Amino acid sequence: MIYTFSALGEEIEKSVRNLRFDSRPTSLYDPIKYILSIGGKRLRPAFVLMAANLFSEDTEQAMKAAIGIEIFHNFTLLHDDLMDKSDMRRGNLTVHKKWNDNAAVLSGDAMLIEAYKHIAEVPKEFLYEVLKQFSTVAMEVCQGQQLDMEFETRNDVTVEEYMEMIRLKTAVLLASSLKIGSIIGNASPSDAESLYQYGIYVGLAFQIKDDLLDVYGDLEFFGKKIGGDIVNNKKTYLLIKALEKADEKQRKELLEWIEATDFDREEKILSVKKVYDELNIREVSEGLIEKYYLAALESLSAVSVPDTRKQELVDLAGKLMHRNI
Amino acid sequence: MIYTFSALGEEIEKSVRNLRFDSRPTSLYDPIKYILSIGGKRLRPAFVLMAANLFSEDTEQAMKAAIGIEIFHNFTLLHDDLMDKSDMRRGNLTVHKKWNDNAAVLSGDAMLIEAYKHIAEVPKEFLYEVLKQFSTVAMEVCQGQQLDMEFETRNDVTVEEYMEMIRLKTAVLLASSLKIGSIIGNASPSDAESLYQYGIYVGLAFQIKDDLLDVYGDLEFFGKKIGGDIVNNKKTYLLIKALEKADEKQRKELLEWIEATDFDREEKILSVKKVYDELNIREVSEGLIEKYYLAALESLSAVSVPDTRKQELVDLAGKLMHRNI
Repeated sequence: MIYTFSALGEEIEKSVRNLRFDSRPTSLYDPIKYILSIGGKRLRPAFVLMAANLFSEDTEQAMKAAIGIEIFHNFTLLHDDLMDKSDMRRGNLTVHKKWNDNAAVLSGDAMLIEAYKHIAEVPKEFLYEVLKQFSTVAMEVCQGQQLDMEFETRNDVTVEEYMEMIRLKTAVLLASSLKIGSIIGNASPSDAESLYQYGIYVGLAFQIKDDLLDVYGDLEFFGKKIGGDIVNNKKTYLLIKALEKADEKQRKELLEWIEATDFDREEKILSVKKVYDELNIREVSEGLIEKYYLAALESLSAVSVPDTRKQELVDLAGKLMHRNI
Repeated sequence: MIYTFSALGEEIEKSVRNLRFDSRPTSLYDPIKYILSIGGKRLRPAFVLMAANLFSEDTEQAMKAAIGIEIFHNFTLLHDDLMDKSDMRRGNLTVHKKWNDNAAVLSGDAMLIEAYKHIAEVPKEFLYEVLKQFSTVAMEVCQGQQLDMEFETRNDVTVEEYMEMIRLKTAVLLASSLKIGSIIGNASPSDAESLYQYGIYVGLAFQIKDDLLDVYGDLEFFGKKIGGDIVNNKKTYLLIKALEKADEKQRKELLEWIEATDFDREEKILSVKKVYDELNIREVSEGLIEKYYLAALESLSAVSVPDTRKQELVDLAGKLMHRNI
């Protein structure tokens, strides 16, 4: 049978809650317990289990890898928040704010090791292949974060460079979750690759949707303040595309706002948004999301299992594209 | 045949020089190339190869693990230097000084992943066991660093607590290098365990020798300024033992120097050293080093290979105990 996203989500929550970090010193593990307890969509571990479930009824076999990837993902958030000097994560204080910078560095390191400890417990016959994929994607995520940080000080990032950055920082981990689940489900290499491609397209669409929600999100649902990316000059798809499409006057206005040091928050958001609207950035972004959504479904259709087994992944892609949080 | 420490050292240097970090962005890899290029004793990879060589002529089989452990060790130095705010390492600027804090965090993370990439390439039949040992020791080193940082703000650290900290921070990685080499050399579990014990004793002695050299080292050979630990109130074996042995007057003097914020560097070093001398701290430390040295040889004698094969490890232990750098 095919388990639903929400049924698997419950199993994942149970496994996360059952994680024991009772080695000493406890101070090393408290930040790990904290960041794992403040939620998140658990999308990556769900992808591991859903991919395994396409080919096998025994999703439990893939649970260690699923949890390993979720721990890894939270490790990247922990270190990224430190590097980005973010104060809040999922409505809670970030680890380096609640504790301090050193706690964030060292507990993050311990999390990366803990992730590998889980990966090591996949069924022996898949260990080498899963481990290799995991290290590959872990390194790619570092490359993505490095590019993201370098973009902060640049105003000439191209759309192509941006797509490569979000591919590395976001899409490959979703794609590798699916690939690792496929491997453990004993899928053929070509099916594993098709699911990987589905994950890449979903991941790219997911990130552009994220960029879009920051500007056009419904405050009531979105849960965080609108316009944070604009205020912080974050090089999002929207900003990069706007700079690309802008005429001389619009470009000058955008750059003035980027360089402004003393400004009214709301005024900056409204002004930048006005330029976006003039340039139809919302529609352009939604069109790109739709393009990736269709490409994801196309990749999924190549997987050699009956369509009924794939329905949950079709629905999930749709939900992720059309979410308002 | 048994390869000498120096012959294996040359092979290790060659392998380190041949490491290619040519993925992009290059800015992620420059700090990795830098820290690996500024030297070090390469003691841990040598231990991997020497242990393998006890049981097998084919040390090349163990080279990937050896390099993985050396990369891991340098990763810990990189992140520790960041957390300890150290400016210099092996006579060169530390990574966070030469670049910045974020580069140290992220390139360190990439190094830890690179270490695992190397570990993954051990012969397949040993992968699970080597990987498990590697993750175990990696986590222990984090625990040791956490304890070390916590000791900074405490003046009541016991000798027992200190020994546990240096066991975790220093000894277990040396011991695990030997154990991993043994596993790849296809040693019996009991031989692997004896070599692990040898490594623990050598590691404990090695760290106490380090503490001793900071105070009683010969400036000409030691290569770094004498007394740095005293100036920084580092909780070394010498200081902890001195606080334990001190009478009320001596204890008061030590604590006054620890709490002093405005002091003459040389005066502080000489004054603390004077208390150490009154308490025979040098002799006590040398006695403990000798005790561990003998225990190391005892553990080594339990390994079921001819004594002639062990001579290189006997000599190396002696050299490490009696070094002046």
